[in-house]
Amino acid sequence: MKIEIGTAYYPEAWPEERVRLDAKLMKEGGISLVRIGEFAWSHMEPREGVYTFEWLHSAVKILGRAGIKVILCTPTSTAPAWLVKKHPEIRIRRPDGTTAYFGVRDHTCYTSSVYRKYAAKLISRLAKEFASCESIAAWQLDNEIGHTIFGSCHCAECQKEFRNFLRRKYGSLEKLNRAWWTVFWSQEYSDWDEIELGGMELKMDSGRVLDSFRFRSEANRAFIVNQIQAIRKFAPDARICTNNYAGLFDRFKAAEMLDFMGEDFYPSADKPMGHNAMVLDRYRCLKEGVPAWILESATSPGAPMRNLFRFFLWSFIARGYDHIVYFHWRSHLGGYEKSHGTFLGPTGKPRARYRLLQEVTRELDAVFKKYPSLPLPKQEAAILHDYETLWSWCAGFWSHWGEFEKTVEYSHRQLLAWGVNSDLIPPDRDFSPYKLLVIPLQTHFPKKLARRLRAFIARGGVVLLGGSSGMYDGNSKLLPEPGPEHLREVFGISIEDFIVFNSDMPMAKNEARESSLSKQVTFSGTLNGKPVAGLADKWIADMEPAGASVLLSYENTILKGQPFFTENRYGDGWALYYGANLVDEASLRVMTRYAVEKAGIPCRALPENVEAVTRGPLTFFLNHGDTPVSFKPDCKGTVVAGGRFSRGRLELQPRDFCVIEHE
Amino acid sequence: MKIEIGTAYYPEAWPEERVRLDAKLMKEGGISLVRIGEFAWSHMEPREGVYTFEWLHSAVKILGRAGIKVILCTPTSTAPAWLVKKHPEIRIRRPDGTTAYFGVRDHTCYTSSVYRKYAAKLISRLAKEFASCESIAAWQLDNEIGHTIFGSCHCAECQKEFRNFLRRKYGSLEKLNRAWWTVFWSQEYSDWDEIELGGMELKMDSGRVLDSFRFRSEANRAFIVNQIQAIRKFAPDARICTNNYAGLFDRFKAAEMLDFMGEDFYPSADKPMGHNAMVLDRYRCLKEGVPAWILESATSPGAPMRNLFRFFLWSFIARGYDHIVYFHWRSHLGGYEKSHGTFLGPTGKPRARYRLLQEVTRELDAVFKKYPSLPLPKQEAAILHDYETLWSWCAGFWSHWGEFEKTVEYSHRQLLAWGVNSDLIPPDRDFSPYKLLVIPLQTHFPKKLARRLRAFIARGGVVLLGGSSGMYDGNSKLLPEPGPEHLREVFGISIEDFIVFNSDMPMAKNEARESSLSKQVTFSGTLNGKPVAGLADKWIADMEPAGASVLLSYENTILKGQPFFTENRYGDGWALYYGANLVDEASLRVMTRYAVEKAGIPCRALPENVEAVTRGPLTFFLNHGDTPVSFKPDCKGTVVAGGRFSRGRLELQPRDFCVIEHE
Amino acid sequence: MKIEIGTAYYPEAWPEERVRLDAKLMKEGGISLVRIGEFAWSHMEPREGVYTFEWLHSAVKILGRAGIKVILCTPTSTAPAWLVKKHPEIRIRRPDGTTAYFGVRDHTCYTSSVYRKYAAKLISRLAKEFASCESIAAWQLDNEIGHTIFGSCHCAECQKEFRNFLRRKYGSLEKLNRAWWTVFWSQEYSDWDEIELGGMELKMDSGRVLDSFRFRSEANRAFIVNQIQAIRKFAPDARICTNNYAGLFDRFKAAEMLDFMGEDFYPSADKPMGHNAMVLDRYRCLKEGVPAWILESATSPGAPMRNLFRFFLWSFIARGYDHIVYFHWRSHLGGYEKSHGTFLGPTGKPRARYRLLQEVTRELDAVFKKYPSLPLPKQEAAILHDYETLWSWCAGFWSHWGEFEKTVEYSHRQLLAWGVNSDLIPPDRDFSPYKLLVIPLQTHFPKKLARRLRAFIARGGVVLLGGSSGMYDGNSKLLPEPGPEHLREVFGISIEDFIVFNSDMPMAKNEARESSLSKQVTFSGTLNGKPVAGLADKWIADMEPAGASVLLSYENTILKGQPFFTENRYGDGWALYYGANLVDEASLRVMTRYAVEKAGIPCRALPENVEAVTRGPLTFFLNHGDTPVSFKPDCKGTVVAGGRFSRGRLELQPRDFCVIEHE
Repeated sequence: MKIEIGTAYYPEAWPEERVRLDAKLMKEGGISLVRIGEFAWSHMEPREGVYTFEWLHSAVKILGRAGIKVILCTPTSTAPAWLVKKHPEIRIRRPDGTTAYFGVRDHTCYTSSVYRKYAAKLISRLAKEFASCESIAAWQLDNEIGHTIFGSCHCAECQKEFRNFLRRKYGSLEKLNRAWWTVFWSQEYSDWDEIELGGMELKMDSGRVLDSFRFRSEANRAFIVNQIQAIRKFAPDARICTNNYAGLFDRFKAAEMLDFMGEDFYPSADKPMGHNAMVLDRYRCLKEGVPAWILESATSPGAPMRNLFRFFLWSFIARGYDHIVYFHWRSHLGGYEKSHGTFLGPTGKPRARYRLLQEVTRELDAVFKKYPSLPLPKQEAAILHDYETLWSWCAGFWSHWGEFEKTVEYSHRQLLAWGVNSDLIPPDRDFSPYKLLVIPLQTHFPKKLARRLRAFIARGGVVLLGGSSGMYDGNSKLLPEPGPEHLREVFGISIEDFIVFNSDMPMAKNEARESSLSKQVTFSGTLNGKPVAGLADKWIADMEPAGASVLLSYENTILKGQPFFTENRYGDGWALYYGANLVDEASLRVMTRYAVEKAGIPCRALPENVEAVTRGPLTFFLNHGDTPVSFKPDCKGTVVAGGRFSRGRLELQPRDFCVIEHE
Repeated sequence: MKIEIGTAYYPEAWPEERVRLDAKLMKEGGISLVRIGEFAWSHMEPREGVYTFEWLHSAVKILGRAGIKVILCTPTSTAPAWLVKKHPEIRIRRPDGTTAYFGVRDHTCYTSSVYRKYAAKLISRLAKEFASCESIAAWQLDNEIGHTIFGSCHCAECQKEFRNFLRRKYGSLEKLNRAWWTVFWSQEYSDWDEIELGGMELKMDSGRVLDSFRFRSEANRAFIVNQIQAIRKFAPDARICTNNYAGLFDRFKAAEMLDFMGEDFYPSADKPMGHNAMVLDRYRCLKEGVPAWILESATSPGAPMRNLFRFFLWSFIARGYDHIVYFHWRSHLGGYEKSHGTFLGPTGKPRARYRLLQEVTRELDAVFKKYPSLPLPKQEAAILHDYETLWSWCAGFWSHWGEFEKTVEYSHRQLLAWGVNSDLIPPDRDFSPYKLLVIPLQTHFPKKLARRLRAFIARGGVVLLGGSSGMYDGNSKLLPEPGPEHLREVFGISIEDFIVFNSDMPMAKNEARESSLSKQVTFSGTLNGKPVAGLADKWIADMEPAGASVLLSYENTILKGQPFFTENRYGDGWALYYGANLVDEASLRVMTRYAVEKAGIPCRALPENVEAVTRGPLTFFLNHGDTPVSFKPDCKGTVVAGGRFSRGRLELQPRDFCVIEHE
Repeated sequence: MKIEIGTAYYPEAWPEERVRLDAKLMKEGGISLVRIGEFAWSHMEPREGVYTFEWLHSAVKILGRAGIKVILCTPTSTAPAWLVKKHPEIRIRRPDGTTAYFGVRDHTCYTSSVYRKYAAKLISRLAKEFASCESIAAWQLDNEIGHTIFGSCHCAECQKEFRNFLRRKYGSLEKLNRAWWTVFWSQEYSDWDEIELGGMELKMDSGRVLDSFRFRSEANRAFIVNQIQAIRKFAPDARICTNNYAGLFDRFKAAEMLDFMGEDFYPSADKPMGHNAMVLDRYRCLKEGVPAWILESATSPGAPMRNLFRFFLWSFIARGYDHIVYFHWRSHLGGYEKSHGTFLGPTGKPRARYRLLQEVTRELDAVFKKYPSLPLPKQEAAILHDYETLWSWCAGFWSHWGEFEKTVEYSHRQLLAWGVNSDLIPPDRDFSPYKLLVIPLQTHFPKKLARRLRAFIARGGVVLLGGSSGMYDGNSKLLPEPGPEHLREVFGISIEDFIVFNSDMPMAKNEARESSLSKQVTFSGTLNGKPVAGLADKWIADMEPAGASVLLSYENTILKGQPFFTENRYGDGWALYYGANLVDEASLRVMTRYAVEKAGIPCRALPENVEAVTRGPLTFFLNHGDTPVSFKPDCKGTVVAGGRFSRGRLELQPRDFCVIEHE
């Protein structure tokens, strides 16, 4: 197999001779994939209806001849000046009436029918031109859909379409008023036209905010479909993707429309190991079984530049990425991003960064040529990642979307601490491949999901459920009955009430316990015979056991003596629940280990800051720490790349890795 | 007597059967007061002129039958969607032309005649419906008048009315130009229509800002009067209040219109003891001699929830509150505040918080049944709190409104440190009940106020005056003569000049003195034979003694050797003055004690973080600290509630209290 | 000679008798210069075409009779209410469409032809009235041109004029598109009307931002010329200046229009010594050979007020200022700045600040009467300060204008540390007076500048060049060839590529080196036989020596072993280059010393926080530190003012100075 290393490239900016030289340098540098065109509308259609694809044909041809495949992009994130001037109404309009301006990117409304029409026209034409071109490996739609400095659009067309969306969904205002609980703050609507789009930046009820997100997610999906149709009209077999689809919109749903997903990931040496792993796991799982590509990454990631380019590249491969595209080839001489990292710099001369690229790609070719292919890493644990929950968390006076993402990452990190890798999956993904399902936060359990969870547990699965999960209906309203909805029997508990507070306890510090005994909710008990004592925060369950065994209990406050962490046997599996949205890290780690062992998943003893991932015959060990480590890994074999493995001990320098082929 | 415990309640959100169950639970929980209706416009008038009061009649009836009285609210903080759609001009308009949006609350202009008309129509109707209803204990106007996330309104009608207000006030532009000192920065007006409303958010002259505040305060008062008239038309005997009237507008003036004042106070365990006491003292004094109610407080105040509900409730009673309403009964299932604390939670089941309520109300009933009534706490010291000063402090390049409130709280805290409780009174309140008057900041002394102060001192009163008090005229202009105006003779000083600077010295740290000798203005001397050495900041007086004795003098800077703290005998009393707007806490404390002793007020020796308040036969001791205390109180008697009192020593756990009936 | 001490004064605010008294007090206080009129439009022209100059004539006459000269100001920073009402289009318009409001100052557009017309009309009239008045020493245009809280204007006229500016400059859109590199992000223009003004607050390409700055700089210059013409029409010999021209616009170009430059400088005791020196050096150099005036400074600078008024005044004189005007005479009773420091305070009585003024001016008169005149301080080193570079630094995703100013100040401080004072000069200033030229950042070297630099070095000069200098073209685009442009041969290097990153290393801390070895780019080597080891950050050169000697080299990263600091003999001089935009302070200091010695400039051994400046026969020593110092200065002579000089040792208290006349 071959790890395909690619780069973003802007032939529109350079003369043809230079493109020829670049193709040669790319080839010699080990580049086999080039992304082109995502910001080139004004160079494809300089005036309305006037198309200039010559430069693009030429570039694709030159690259093709050098054996380099192309990812061709639709340039819709950069509507040209003439279009904005002719149709100023396509610009994003903020809630306060001000509008986006030309000169940045992503200044246009995804809902705008005018904009979509112009986009479709250009894309059809582009598809027609390049449909038969063999070196097109894939099509990328737009660029980072949903990322904009202008915030979400509130233009007249968005408002109109939002009302249509609500009409279709609710049929009557009575239903909408009930669904949104408009009885509070006198928000009952008596006319559809009274309703306006919500947004997380506006302090308002979660019902409106949730439906506003659903509407936007739908609108973005329609924007994608619109583009796919325009391409498929002429290139029916095109493989179509997009990159770094904004995390505020349902990426799983977007993935359904697309052939594969692309990620833009600029890793940082300052972020903890778990963050790197979580981002890679999250993207890998967006489209089930279909490998994701990295469509942008840094040529000089973080400081120092020493070996991190190589280190991070191998960390990508470890977690299932075989196509890695860098941003970008040669510095733009002008423009907002002229100082962005590249392989060649403005002079276009091969220097240190290029030489490093060359070394690294040669090593990759040498290592991987002996494997026909590598399977994706196979995980025994999964974490639920639900966009409806994320959106629900975007409204109300004590929540914001970051909380949801942080909570998921926090759980992911506790698994990683025991050497357990995990998938991040949507609620409708098949659970059967997994032994353990961690659900730190899932506001609403539709009946079907609850049924599937019951079945999963009954067949021997373990579920570790947390906090306010299952306490809300499908409109983010609190349930008027005890929770977790549809799962009380399975978990053997009944959550009757809860208390919300926020002491801003740092997530990762347990030392706070003693000094702040009077400020936190504390719990204690024993797990596997060992004493556990911790802190809970944010959202605290007031529950009754109804069959479950109580493992840990609250120690203080008016909940003193009531259960905090419970387990229940259900069929052949186990249902575990802890009653807080935030638990101090040491305790959550121990509770997670308890669930891991219950599920029969082996823990891997690894030094701190070291991760291990297995793909088929290979296991990748990566040291994310700033100090060297030396340890006995739990596998035997021979070193394929990196590191040093002698007398059973693996030696890893800081930011170094080692790949072992199992015996 | 009975301490009335109440709750906000939203019968518009629940079916009648549930209201019946809630009434039963309230009664059993010790609730005797319910606040209803403040956000229910769309449920009272779902379409223009269509009234639906059935649910409200039913709720009031059910509650009445259970012996629970009702505070009925006008729902004007939440204008419904149909009204906003029909009359978008009623929305708050910001100075930059953007407007408030529907979906939050307090989105409407208090000045708007259209809005007032609609409000009055609904309120009249509401009054007509419920005029004869015996279980209505009181009416609450609007909700938290003046609190809005949208800032103050600058709509066309506000501008027009502001000009009318100025025309009435000044008569001629010449007078206005002089009053505002428009000669600076070329701001002289030659046409009334050139003038626009100011605001503290806009950097502009204090004259315009001060009159803008006066205008708004008047406009809000008219808004109140408008509502009172609408109610009294049908319910002439209605007792009318409002809650948490915004602190940027004159609360004393608002209180004049109302029968009693209501407070929303969510205490925090993280705030110092003095803050709690100050807020309660401030509200209690808004309407002289008329007890204030707490109209909102937290069901689960801060962390931990252990006993703070009980602790804070007793702290309210200690400072004169016998009606305490909590927010709120049962969680809204949706809406912006669905996660707010309640007694019942979304399931509506009595759980831990309800059980605590029950316990606490039973204790209250048991304790207070033997007292026919308790007088308000009687204070011997008062602090002047003047809205004109607060507003004056809102403009100019080195001031803001927080400074004034902070300065008042700072002085209040120094009294409390010696066990001296105080009232916070407006300048036109009767001074004769007090022995000591502390005036940390009173920009302007109108002749009448100065005369009353002179009389107060002459008759034996003590005044402790600070900083730039008396240095401004009634338009916040600096006086061209030495200050303090009208009081130079009384204080025996002449403030000839001043120096302003700002080293951001922390208010509470005296340790800074040595290390920053060269950065602060320092003073020293002796008080009662003990040496005092401190720091002054922000505004420093350059004064001459004119009869006064100099107690402390400046040590450094060009003011070296000049007086800083002076005292003057006047009639039977004493006039004390210190020449800075900020004094380090240790020194101000000692200076305050000097004034307290001069006034013949006994100091109470209390451990740190412990407060003591006396109401008639009872003294309340409250430990706000995180550690237990044990001390000998200065009174004898028997424990009525809380604490432990044995062998003359009082033992108080953290956040615990003890009430003693005097022998 | 006489050091002229002045004050801003507002006779429009006071009655004539008071003006008479003020003139007397000024004279007795040592004031010989008064600035009048800069905020008085509404008092000069209260209604359109109605002029009221009586007060001004009277004031000028009274002051003249007292022997006090006048700086007469055009009041254009405060357009009056009637004008704003009649022509609201003259208000500054922000990019989001909101506009400035009346009530502050600087609310009008410098480009507006309507505004300029009204301004010119008033100014002509003013000039006509006062042309023959002998006591007018100078005219000041506007007040602090370019300083406004409203940001730069984007009104329709600005947009139109910007397009005209671009048309004139580029002739064709093809040229503009190439110059701005609009190929990136699809920003190619096909119609002039598509183009809108940029701004540093908008995230956009540097080409547009750079030309927007150039346009604004031109517009401001035209605004100045407009006013000069209006004055010269009637007062052809008027000496014209302005004050504190905003640092975002080309001050050197503005100086060309004006007879001399004025500075507003409010020094702070909290800022390091170097900042004070840098500001004074910068202003002094704005107009070559013409002394600058300080047109505003603080009457009570910082804390403590003890002697800092005197200390800072002498620090101004030391660096070449003989005219020093303070802000201001007597407190305005109202207006935004009523609390600003003054000599007299609101009461108008001479108090501590006035007495200090009197003392200080008497001392000045006594000291300087024996010198016929003092030359400006003469420096042997200069630092390049280029507005085109500053503007280039205002756009792009990792830069901002502060970076450029910080970088210049950083280099200035390293010279000062060795007792070397320097001029801050524009690129077109004559280099021949200097031995050393420090160029920390000069994005673009036009051919002519490069030629002049080559000549300077060839004739024996030393240039110390840093970081990304010479890597950009005249439109802030990166050069596609190795740099530094036109100077590769001179420096004997070829910068082939660079790496940008940002670890937010504190500029001044070298201790970070060991602990962050893995996060920084490190370099080492020896200078003058002593080992040097340091850190580089922000922008790192990847260069080849081409004749130069390598003094220091990179230690780590992919650049390991490559040159970092180089020197090259060229003609009789030396060309030194270091390859980073940020170097830790200790290393840059040593490298600077290396360059200073190479240039044959003597280093002065001074204690920390002490500066020394020589003007003709006098050397000024100033101790900016908080502790006393005692040292042997490198000159002999007698004390003329301040300090204590005995047995060859100079003793300086904190914030004290000593002036020595050389033997």
